[in-house]
Amino acid sequence: MSTKNLLGTGAAWMNGRIMPLAEARLPVNDWGILHSDITYDVVPVWDGGFFRLADYMERFHASRASLRLDVGLGEEDIRTALHDMVAASGLRAAYVAMVASRGVPLIPGTRDPRECGNHFYAWCVPYIHVMRPEMPAESRTAWIAKSVTRIPETSIDPRVKNYQWGDFTTGLFEAKDNGFETVILLDGEGCVTEGPGFNVFALHGDRLITTDHGALQGISRRTVLEMASEHGLRVEIRPLPLEEFMASDEVFLSTSGGGVAPLTRVDDRIFSNGQAGPITTVLHQTYWRWIHDPAYRTDIDYGITTGMTV
Amino acid sequence: MSTKNLLGTGAAWMNGRIMPLAEARLPVNDWGILHSDITYDVVPVWDGGFFRLADYMERFHASRASLRLDVGLGEEDIRTALHDMVAASGLRAAYVAMVASRGVPLIPGTRDPRECGNHFYAWCVPYIHVMRPEMPAESRTAWIAKSVTRIPETSIDPRVKNYQWGDFTTGLFEAKDNGFETVILLDGEGCVTEGPGFNVFALHGDRLITTDHGALQGISRRTVLEMASEHGLRVEIRPLPLEEFMASDEVFLSTSGGGVAPLTRVDDRIFSNGQAGPITTVLHQTYWRWIHDPAYRTDIDYGITTGMTV
Repeated sequence: MSTKNLLGTGAAWMNGRIMPLAEARLPVNDWGILHSDITYDVVPVWDGGFFRLADYMERFHASRASLRLDVGLGEEDIRTALHDMVAASGLRAAYVAMVASRGVPLIPGTRDPRECGNHFYAWCVPYIHVMRPEMPAESRTAWIAKSVTRIPETSIDPRVKNYQWGDFTTGLFEAKDNGFETVILLDGEGCVTEGPGFNVFALHGDRLITTDHGALQGISRRTVLEMASEHGLRVEIRPLPLEEFMASDEVFLSTSGGGVAPLTRVDDRIFSNGQAGPITTVLHQTYWRWIHDPAYRTDIDYGITTGMTV
Repeated sequence: MSTKNLLGTGAAWMNGRIMPLAEARLPVNDWGILHSDITYDVVPVWDGGFFRLADYMERFHASRASLRLDVGLGEEDIRTALHDMVAASGLRAAYVAMVASRGVPLIPGTRDPRECGNHFYAWCVPYIHVMRPEMPAESRTAWIAKSVTRIPETSIDPRVKNYQWGDFTTGLFEAKDNGFETVILLDGEGCVTEGPGFNVFALHGDRLITTDHGALQGISRRTVLEMASEHGLRVEIRPLPLEEFMASDEVFLSTSGGGVAPLTRVDDRIFSNGQAGPITTVLHQTYWRWIHDPAYRTDIDYGITTGMTV
């Protein structure tokens, strides 16, 4: 088996080494696990290039600053690690995660988050779609969680991309129990926030609405807002009550795992006669055109020789 | 170095093997990390015996049931794993964690929590005090978090012991920035909930008050409530407004990491003239008497030969 094949199902960068994903592990007493004291970002690679890499890296930097994580690497070091890892994997379409963790205590028994060895790692796997392209229209369904509400911003800042998915996981089980593909969470006031790994949008005529709170400010969300302006849609960023959401013409998700994903059903409400709506379809097509636009791409040099040890 | 010494700074049980803690690692794509989809419990070992092991194991079982985690082990298997691990470590005073994680996806790219390989592991280190015994009275301080409130029960159930500590971590940094040892979080209505790794109690005369919501139902909390009855205190389990908390005669923490820990200062309020209060002191002493009570102890047989491979 060649090195590329060995890494082609999943690769990681850890402590300066590129390795098969299965070898990339965290100590069970790393506070990234023990306190979920960890942040991450995921940049998509498509057709051999990163999409909006600078934007994803900028958000990852902001998340680390917010959590006071100092991983001892510069932006160029991180960029190089991501590039070399994906190049070594040979993956031309990939889910690429960059992660910063609090690390293990430097003083045994300490309970002080300032006394841990912060660290960076990265990993990649073949591209993951939140909803796979071959999924039939009738399966593109979302359930509104009934037993759980989104963690409020006063407890955990959703703009700092995090792994604290307890509310999402509860909601996902509820959705699956009811035969739905994914879940959307409401805030305490009954407004739409986000789901596990995606932002949520509603279209009323030429008005495109998404929440201003309780959700990650996704890079794919930003792409949608920019595309919307290009297509003459009027953007409204504000609380989105469930009743208004359910009365929309079209609804869709935005995610780095597939771009723009139409929903054809939410709870008992069928949208667009069970098909992707016309504006959603245009935005979906635009997203995939932008993915190939040199203005947003960082090409990967798969021919480089890295310093990797496999 | 003998095997016992090698494990004496930290040991783990994973996949049927006992190993040094540093070798116990989780794959970076385990959903226990990626979604903090993981639960745990920590049972103290003191003077060569577990304290209230059956109670801790019962809660751990309830937490797994709540999250629908099936680790494929029976209660006796888990009990044996904990016992053999601590025996192999030689630790006579230990922090012993039992953990159940969602695991890695069994189907690549799946986003369905039902399609992961749930697993159990355990680890132990020398006993950790939330506030070390040698800490002077004036250092036993807590800060009331100002910038963050406790994750509400409608988002994440605090009775299912979890690693989603984002609110605690934010609060801890705030406490440290203000020169305090630890932090207490309020709920959205300004009532006292809990802190990182402990429940909180207030004493007004012979009335002992602790919150009925927004907090773990700690086993040490239960011990305090039982001791309180023995000492003729009247127990009130109900919302505890901050104003009432600050007007208390004595305040203290309960935790498996030290039992009953007095607070001498919360924000600018000094309690009991800066010393442990008299009732808190009695409860602290009672806790350490109970730790040695055969009724609550499960002795560890350090002479056994385990099937460990080191």
